[in-house]
Amino acid sequence: MIYADRLEAAVRRTGNPCLVGLDPHLELLPPEFAAARDPAASRAERAAAVTSFLLEVIDVAAGRVPAVKPQSAFFELLGPAGAQAWETVVEAAHAAGLLVIGDVKRSDIGSTAAAYATAFLEGLPGSNPSALCDAVTVNPLLGSESIQPFLDVCARGEKGLYVLVRTSNPGSDEFQAQGSPSLSERIADAVVRWGEPLVGECGMSSVGAVVGATLPGELAELRARMPRTPLLLPGYGAQGAGAADVAHGFLDGGRGALVNSSRAVLFAYRNRPGVPWKDATREALEAMIEALGAPLGQSTGSG
Amino acid sequence: MIYADRLEAAVRRTGNPCLVGLDPHLELLPPEFAAARDPAASRAERAAAVTSFLLEVIDVAAGRVPAVKPQSAFFELLGPAGAQAWETVVEAAHAAGLLVIGDVKRSDIGSTAAAYATAFLEGLPGSNPSALCDAVTVNPLLGSESIQPFLDVCARGEKGLYVLVRTSNPGSDEFQAQGSPSLSERIADAVVRWGEPLVGECGMSSVGAVVGATLPGELAELRARMPRTPLLLPGYGAQGAGAADVAHGFLDGGRGALVNSSRAVLFAYRNRPGVPWKDATREALEAMIEALGAPLGQSTGSG
Repeated sequence: MIYADRLEAAVRRTGNPCLVGLDPHLELLPPEFAAARDPAASRAERAAAVTSFLLEVIDVAAGRVPAVKPQSAFFELLGPAGAQAWETVVEAAHAAGLLVIGDVKRSDIGSTAAAYATAFLEGLPGSNPSALCDAVTVNPLLGSESIQPFLDVCARGEKGLYVLVRTSNPGSDEFQAQGSPSLSERIADAVVRWGEPLVGECGMSSVGAVVGATLPGELAELRARMPRTPLLLPGYGAQGAGAADVAHGFLDGGRGALVNSSRAVLFAYRNRPGVPWKDATREALEAMIEALGAPLGQSTGSG
Repeated sequence: MIYADRLEAAVRRTGNPCLVGLDPHLELLPPEFAAARDPAASRAERAAAVTSFLLEVIDVAAGRVPAVKPQSAFFELLGPAGAQAWETVVEAAHAAGLLVIGDVKRSDIGSTAAAYATAFLEGLPGSNPSALCDAVTVNPLLGSESIQPFLDVCARGEKGLYVLVRTSNPGSDEFQAQGSPSLSERIADAVVRWGEPLVGECGMSSVGAVVGATLPGELAELRARMPRTPLLLPGYGAQGAGAADVAHGFLDGGRGALVNSSRAVLFAYRNRPGVPWKDATREALEAMIEALGAPLGQSTGSG
């Protein structure tokens, strides 16, 4: 089954479009995992603490949401032990029935992009398929040629892509909003072209787009411009976007988008003195599901 | 000493602007390192073969050129063993007196970009400084905010950056040439701003730019637009640019640019039947030095 259909099935199954971003900022981990930020700890010890924390987060996410999104930077920070932690976390998420979107934002010329596509999506011969991602984020600055190797992998199997179209950071206007059509609009049109051969039975493509939920007006325009493109909406929660903002990213019936929250879920304990971190995380995730699940018929009585 | 001055000193010392790209395409390695592409080999065995090959390449580069540029994708392909190989190669290059420019092309929002800057340039407390890069390549699509964490690291120490301004791939026009001023020109203007506080005694900045040598006309314009910006020019050799093309990227006296060659040096043996691979690589590198070193007063009688 191609990625678009696997994603659709996962959203239908869980009844909500919530995506848990696995961004293990070392300094924000709960006190139980303080080894992650201990300057005297080795990278292997730090990586073990990060892994333990994320396995618990995956335990909270399992069965509740369709997917998780590990952020590569926080693993790369830990060197070889971080690369091992990445694979352990991806495998654990798969074992828990979650889709995994690797937030790697890679970009390079064709032959090098092909190496990245192999690294994250397809694997070398003999590699463990459950340690590979279901989809990755990519940066399109180098043009179609740099995206093609990822599209080739998607066409061969079950994998998907999310192309950066409009990012959620306050300074994203600087280059992305320039020109008419804007750079983001040009990229959106390319995403539609790239995705046309990869439309699933659900009517959506396996080639998605990252569009910041912090810009509701543009989100609505880009949603209309890419009618069969699954969106990945960052910016919910800690970055300031709410349920009304992200609503512009959905198609009828609450379909067509995933909404990411990282810090507001992972580090919810920071605003809940006295509450065990895992309870705070579970409650934050359930609140997000309740806020966003209704259009998909999610029962708000659960939990 | 800030990166700009360290780079200038390395170019003066070696008398040429040649940069050896360490892009270990598994399928192109010499037969001696065939374990790298053996489908039955583990990733650790493949990584060991890649490491052995690159240590020999570093042996050829040592004392001849100012810097090497490992390409992250080919290491990431090998998982945790690849991450270890990356650090081994970076350390070996430093031990051989070479500067190391990590070709990682990372891009992300502020707090995540900071994790990448730590991962590649600054290291966690207690990490081995010689396994960190002297500079990295970055993708500016997300704007100034995404570059700032890297600039902060550069301002604190001896590190540098190369921002993608105009890439060497045939399809780079698609987004980079759009608008007036073009996206590349806008990025170039930002690179000048970002680099102003980081100008060294040599008069150049520690904030550089990647500009493809395959587009000589634009290279000349971008050189003029960024007068204090060290350039990194890919595209020489295998991608088709020659000495006359890259000449547009230099300032007077052969200063202000590094010229990268990856495949034409690493895999020179493929066009030299019967010649041991390391001899072919050394001769290809010496030919490149001879072609490009003259403006810096490099003696063409060496080797």
